[in-house]
Amino acid sequence: MARRRAGATAIVSFLGDLLLNIADRGRALVGLRRAAALGVADILRLADALMSNRGEASGVALARDILSGYAALSEADKTAVLIGFAEGFGPPMDRLKAAAEAFLAEPDPRRAAAVFACAEPRRQELVRRLNLAPGATYALVLMRADLLERKAAHPALAAFDEDFVHLFSAWFNRGFLVLRQIQWSSPASILEKIIRYEAVHAIAGWDDLRRRLEPQDRRLFAFFHPALADEPLIFVEVALTDSVPAAIQPLLDAPSGQAATKAPTTAVFYSISNAQKGLAGISFGNFLIKQVVEDLKRETPGLTTFVTLSPAPGFAAWLAEERAKPASDFILPEDARALALLDKPGWAHKSGAAEAVERALAPIAAAYFLRARTPSGKPVDPVARFHLGNGARLDRLNPLGDRSPRGLAQSHGLMVNYRYELAEIEQNHEAFAARGEIAASSAVRKLLRGKSVASDLLASLS
Amino acid sequence: MARRRAGATAIVSFLGDLLLNIADRGRALVGLRRAAALGVADILRLADALMSNRGEASGVALARDILSGYAALSEADKTAVLIGFAEGFGPPMDRLKAAAEAFLAEPDPRRAAAVFACAEPRRQELVRRLNLAPGATYALVLMRADLLERKAAHPALAAFDEDFVHLFSAWFNRGFLVLRQIQWSSPASILEKIIRYEAVHAIAGWDDLRRRLEPQDRRLFAFFHPALADEPLIFVEVALTDSVPAAIQPLLDAPSGQAATKAPTTAVFYSISNAQKGLAGISFGNFLIKQVVEDLKRETPGLTTFVTLSPAPGFAAWLAEERAKPASDFILPEDARALALLDKPGWAHKSGAAEAVERALAPIAAAYFLRARTPSGKPVDPVARFHLGNGARLDRLNPLGDRSPRGLAQSHGLMVNYRYELAEIEQNHEAFAARGEIAASSAVRKLLRGKSVASDLLASLS
Amino acid sequence: MARRRAGATAIVSFLGDLLLNIADRGRALVGLRRAAALGVADILRLADALMSNRGEASGVALARDILSGYAALSEADKTAVLIGFAEGFGPPMDRLKAAAEAFLAEPDPRRAAAVFACAEPRRQELVRRLNLAPGATYALVLMRADLLERKAAHPALAAFDEDFVHLFSAWFNRGFLVLRQIQWSSPASILEKIIRYEAVHAIAGWDDLRRRLEPQDRRLFAFFHPALADEPLIFVEVALTDSVPAAIQPLLDAPSGQAATKAPTTAVFYSISNAQKGLAGISFGNFLIKQVVEDLKRETPGLTTFVTLSPAPGFAAWLAEERAKPASDFILPEDARALALLDKPGWAHKSGAAEAVERALAPIAAAYFLRARTPSGKPVDPVARFHLGNGARLDRLNPLGDRSPRGLAQSHGLMVNYRYELAEIEQNHEAFAARGEIAASSAVRKLLRGKSVASDLLASLS
Amino acid sequence: MARRRAGATAIVSFLGDLLLNIADRGRALVGLRRAAALGVADILRLADALMSNRGEASGVALARDILSGYAALSEADKTAVLIGFAEGFGPPMDRLKAAAEAFLAEPDPRRAAAVFACAEPRRQELVRRLNLAPGATYALVLMRADLLERKAAHPALAAFDEDFVHLFSAWFNRGFLVLRQIQWSSPASILEKIIRYEAVHAIAGWDDLRRRLEPQDRRLFAFFHPALADEPLIFVEVALTDSVPAAIQPLLDAPSGQAATKAPTTAVFYSISNAQKGLAGISFGNFLIKQVVEDLKRETPGLTTFVTLSPAPGFAAWLAEERAKPASDFILPEDARALALLDKPGWAHKSGAAEAVERALAPIAAAYFLRARTPSGKPVDPVARFHLGNGARLDRLNPLGDRSPRGLAQSHGLMVNYRYELAEIEQNHEAFAARGEIAASSAVRKLLRGKSVASDLLASLS
Repeated sequence: MARRRAGATAIVSFLGDLLLNIADRGRALVGLRRAAALGVADILRLADALMSNRGEASGVALARDILSGYAALSEADKTAVLIGFAEGFGPPMDRLKAAAEAFLAEPDPRRAAAVFACAEPRRQELVRRLNLAPGATYALVLMRADLLERKAAHPALAAFDEDFVHLFSAWFNRGFLVLRQIQWSSPASILEKIIRYEAVHAIAGWDDLRRRLEPQDRRLFAFFHPALADEPLIFVEVALTDSVPAAIQPLLDAPSGQAATKAPTTAVFYSISNAQKGLAGISFGNFLIKQVVEDLKRETPGLTTFVTLSPAPGFAAWLAEERAKPASDFILPEDARALALLDKPGWAHKSGAAEAVERALAPIAAAYFLRARTPSGKPVDPVARFHLGNGARLDRLNPLGDRSPRGLAQSHGLMVNYRYELAEIEQNHEAFAARGEIAASSAVRKLLRGKSVASDLLASLS
Repeated sequence: MARRRAGATAIVSFLGDLLLNIADRGRALVGLRRAAALGVADILRLADALMSNRGEASGVALARDILSGYAALSEADKTAVLIGFAEGFGPPMDRLKAAAEAFLAEPDPRRAAAVFACAEPRRQELVRRLNLAPGATYALVLMRADLLERKAAHPALAAFDEDFVHLFSAWFNRGFLVLRQIQWSSPASILEKIIRYEAVHAIAGWDDLRRRLEPQDRRLFAFFHPALADEPLIFVEVALTDSVPAAIQPLLDAPSGQAATKAPTTAVFYSISNAQKGLAGISFGNFLIKQVVEDLKRETPGLTTFVTLSPAPGFAAWLAEERAKPASDFILPEDARALALLDKPGWAHKSGAAEAVERALAPIAAAYFLRARTPSGKPVDPVARFHLGNGARLDRLNPLGDRSPRGLAQSHGLMVNYRYELAEIEQNHEAFAARGEIAASSAVRKLLRGKSVASDLLASLS
Repeated sequence: MARRRAGATAIVSFLGDLLLNIADRGRALVGLRRAAALGVADILRLADALMSNRGEASGVALARDILSGYAALSEADKTAVLIGFAEGFGPPMDRLKAAAEAFLAEPDPRRAAAVFACAEPRRQELVRRLNLAPGATYALVLMRADLLERKAAHPALAAFDEDFVHLFSAWFNRGFLVLRQIQWSSPASILEKIIRYEAVHAIAGWDDLRRRLEPQDRRLFAFFHPALADEPLIFVEVALTDSVPAAIQPLLDAPSGQAATKAPTTAVFYSISNAQKGLAGISFGNFLIKQVVEDLKRETPGLTTFVTLSPAPGFAAWLAEERAKPASDFILPEDARALALLDKPGWAHKSGAAEAVERALAPIAAAYFLRARTPSGKPVDPVARFHLGNGARLDRLNPLGDRSPRGLAQSHGLMVNYRYELAEIEQNHEAFAARGEIAASSAVRKLLRGKSVASDLLASLS
Repeated sequence: MARRRAGATAIVSFLGDLLLNIADRGRALVGLRRAAALGVADILRLADALMSNRGEASGVALARDILSGYAALSEADKTAVLIGFAEGFGPPMDRLKAAAEAFLAEPDPRRAAAVFACAEPRRQELVRRLNLAPGATYALVLMRADLLERKAAHPALAAFDEDFVHLFSAWFNRGFLVLRQIQWSSPASILEKIIRYEAVHAIAGWDDLRRRLEPQDRRLFAFFHPALADEPLIFVEVALTDSVPAAIQPLLDAPSGQAATKAPTTAVFYSISNAQKGLAGISFGNFLIKQVVEDLKRETPGLTTFVTLSPAPGFAAWLAEERAKPASDFILPEDARALALLDKPGWAHKSGAAEAVERALAPIAAAYFLRARTPSGKPVDPVARFHLGNGARLDRLNPLGDRSPRGLAQSHGLMVNYRYELAEIEQNHEAFAARGEIAASSAVRKLLRGKSVASDLLASLS
């Protein structure tokens, strides 16, 4: 593109320029050839241009070239670009120093605001400008997924991740999310993503998906963001039943044989999957469940019970650790014989062995949820942390609720019902967040052994 | 709502709670009665709750109550709430001090990030949480409009406004805006807002609006945000013609008499209106024009010229000032007689007077755009600053382009064509942003008087 | 378009042909020039081509040219074309004669079917083929409106009208109609048609329309046909109230002063308008009311009463006739003084006169509805025929329900409530259709004078 | 539902009635119990009610009950109901006789119209009234599919089928059909029907379907009717290529290996499927192809060639018949050895045998299309009749174009390209329809053997 003097009138091949603009204008601005693949250095140079005055005028084209160039890089080159962004677009250190000194000399809101302004890494403006390109928001979510994979190995990326968290928290604020029911009449291009993203109980194909969508007593809800129209962010699968289920296989099996419940009383959340790795830590799962509860209640007023049927993904590993200890707080000598059965393949499908295991595991599982804690004082089980943190109550333990190979491997088949009781959510959440107290039904508490039952109970009443 | 012990099972009137939740749960959480109007102190207390653990569990209800309570307040009480937010939700000063000291002791990216985290006023999280409520985004845009009205009188609000700018810049990033053409078949509820928000050439009613939408040679485009589905953010009105128009009235008059141009070559942007006071300073006008240029070019490939027909809103006031000066740099003694005509009502409709004024004003107007500057070195005219800043070129001056009372009052009828030439936009923008240079056609430059013509020209070539 | 031998390969200017096809192919087929306006003979020639083999291959283009050519004709030429269609495209008389003879010789279903096939006028196939063109359905509805205007003057058109009725009854079968609620957020292009087509209580403009759409207690429903997407076929305006209204003005006035009823019990159908003259006699009004009753009931379960507030458009004319008779069956000598007041302008706004008239008119109005009959035995009032035929009950007479000039002119202000009681609709309809019995409340019956009260009542019980 | 006297006011359980109305009102009207299944006699009784006065008031409920009752019947009972409709709802024979006599006495248009009115079987009104129920149109299409299955065995049904044809021709007039492109983002509930209805080249599952939808060079278009929103009526699959393809397998195989043509010149219609058995004989295939040609041309202006790649489903059967004849007009003695190869399994995959067969079949196939005729003088091949009747030209024969088992079985692998040349369509159609002439390329004609080549050619030029 030839340079022309400002103010000169010229007959321009407008259409040519327009197409140039659409295709390659960004590259042209920094002197790159059209067709060639972009390297790490090219992309960093384009990012510099995007942050300059030039970027204000031609931001869309520059942003598009950076994002498409980045997407085409090798894994190693992606790492280099991310580190380049992380190190090359930090905050303006000299201005930040001056602002910090001024603030410390006379700490007032105005000077604090100046510190905030100077402390913002230029990466945030970079990401905001990258978002100008069509489809950029999803490309940036994928970029953060790349970053998360590399974060452990490259400490320089940690600060960049904080920038993503800061911006994504604003962009993916619950106020901007849209809840949509996914049905068999939804676009196949979305349905295939449900198949791919289901993380809890794998969907075996289109027929299996259909069994989770089409029957009258099944629902699937997902959060979407307007800028990621075809990409679910998180979704939950629901069965409407007339009792709280204790096992997953009957729910997943084809419901052809039995008619759907005519007047369901219970909504069972039997699978919740985060769909976007790049949005890890940007929390919307709690909003999803509460919103779905409200919507279901409106649609089917007869529903009175809202529970999950959840895995206990940490249980088997935790139990193995406890069994390996010379002295466990949670296992008694008399448990040994029954626990030894766990090491024999096929125990779950032999009724004698299964019953013995069930009896032995019940108090241990109760202790796993109610007493075992991480070093920072939280429950060991990640799914428990999520639901208890949302204000749910630990309602029932279901040994052998999941006899699939995966279920047996991760929790010896143990599944859990968490109950969402609207009247309790707030105080459960508060007790859990402030004092680490776990809301649990008396049925679960009674499973605990030994003197500490009373004290556990007392704790819950305090 | 009675408190219940965690873990106790209870027969709950679920539906009642649900309705309570929908209507008044927020208030109930902080002990407020259902029906009563909320006062300033109530709202500040609800905001405290929203920022606490409790807010995490019941944020939607609290946010809704705060926003609806605020909306119902008197003007004076709104001021009190805004100041309450501004002063009560600043950054954590002690932690910020510590972080600043640590950073200054050893300035590195990690410590800079810590400063950024501590420097963020808690107001930003407050606003993010308020955005949980349905319809909150628009309510927050209105809240900022309230704040802007009060900012001059209440300096404490300035920092709060910076928080809004920070968040709105993320929320209203161009990547999230949707361009839509507004047509006569668009919802009446949106059309009535176009009538109300048109800020440049008032729309006299539905028939007048129809004249700007329905003819084959008229277009109206607006940016929308998904969370503000029925509220245009900014819109531009376009006429397709076969030449660059010099006056506005023929464009606004009913085009019934004359057929639309069969093969238009020129798109005239004859009105651009910001629709939301609460989004002042969140810039998207430049994106709007460039996007519309691309869309029109695709729809009607024959278009080769993209110009505005713009007002010069600062001209009359500036001229009055210059005339009042003992010695103006821009007015010559020989101009006096013609300028005196401006003081006689009706001059614009008398051909002799109008011609004399036109002749006299041409060089003065050229100087107004090309030489007159604000103390910070920018053009005096706000519309000029906008279009030149976008990379447009000052293409033609049209004295008596607008003989309406308003046009005569603000600019003695002067209108301007700015031209968007895609091949120039970037360098025009850069020259303007970096060096204050103004891109102008030779036709406009030739109107300038005196020795400085050459130097102006030279400047433009440097 | 040059003729080419079949089988020869030829480099064809395909795009040119395509455009020709879109614009003028139909005309080209019968040797007409592109730009020229079509005359009556041209259109009839195109219609011949459309009915030939040629029409099968190029029907869309021919149909479009015929319809657009027809639309551009003068009124007189339209008459000529309609008569040309009516006379030139009748049934195949010779084949019909043969089929009729064969049928009469041996009347069986097969021969009856042959008669049906031969008796179908070729006009029906013509209209079906005309419907191939884009937008044709609406054009054909307009063509029938033209025909209806001319039917009285041109008897030859009567048979053509029967063809339209036959086809439109199939096309506009209720199964194909879509009920949509019209709201303030509906397209302005539809709303302006509501303003234009309202036939009962004129809408004074956009603000007036808004008063009928936006308040919480107002609804407007319309039937649409998929092929006439922007053209309502019929629409009904509804007010939700807490009692049965006796006068129209309070409903039409701005409801700003008073809040909408919180818990409405009554849906008032206060205006029903047919929008398409060309669909006269294709009945869907009864379906509209019943469908709206069902939809409102689902939306607002508290509604228990569904009534109209209807005009009595034939009353004043009928009364004038009765008064002119030497001896009326319905007017008593003692009515004379009160009725004389009707001839004095302004009586309706003077309380003494108004009361006297009201008293005198009540029994006469009751007789107008319950006893007066057309020669064919139906009620005199056309609105009464519609609602009673739908199965509604005559519920209440409201003298001075409409004091507008129009209301006074057509019925001396009389308005009527017809009630749709779902449990009665079927038997009311049957009694009316089979035996001419009129369902009426006892309140209305009691207004009747003289010995025949008992016999009327008896009739209704039989 | 208790009967109540007209005019009596009564506290009615309105909601109950409403629900009754929605569920079972139709049955109640004729005294049937709610839950019981309907028998043949019940349905015929409901149909009588639907045609009575009662039907006018409660038609929707009656129609729904008849259609759902019918759908639940056994196959034998369905036959009985269809015969019941056919025999019980014929035309009014006495009135028809009178009208026929009056017409024959004095044949004029008015009397012809009276004959038409009386000759219409009451079945047509029955079907129109059945169409009142929600979803009725599709139910009626299925009912006609039932009828077609039974038509051969039950001659009484023939006349009923003519009624369906008459009504469906009006309902499914091309003016009411909507062309939609089916994509991978279309509803899965529609896509599964494409998989099910594909009649030419079976779709093996979701991945196979995706290969026909998602690649840049593939398209699938379908006609829909507004009242059958989720049911395609007919659809066509298209590949965009840069040459006319001679074989189907490369088109059906995964296009993963090779990139899509950048600048396609040719649109290949490689599969056309009717989706609704109940719409047999209601022709819209020709409209579909022409509309798709127009749409593709607009979307991709570079397309210049529109051809099919079609099967020759009648060829193998015809050839077997000819070979069985003592003396065939189309087979020469020297063909015998090559044709004998056809009887040896696997010949199509052995290059020597395949070549020999190809050579021998070429002239025979040309004769199959150009000379062989049905008793009524039409081409033997049904696909040829369709495309030649639409005005296409027989462009190229492709022996071994389809080596799939099905392709070999029905046509020894023979496939055909028909070309749609817009400039020829009309005259091709006319020559074919009026004189039975077949448009064919010279390449195909040259394949013919013997003296008749010249005469064939002459015929085509006449």
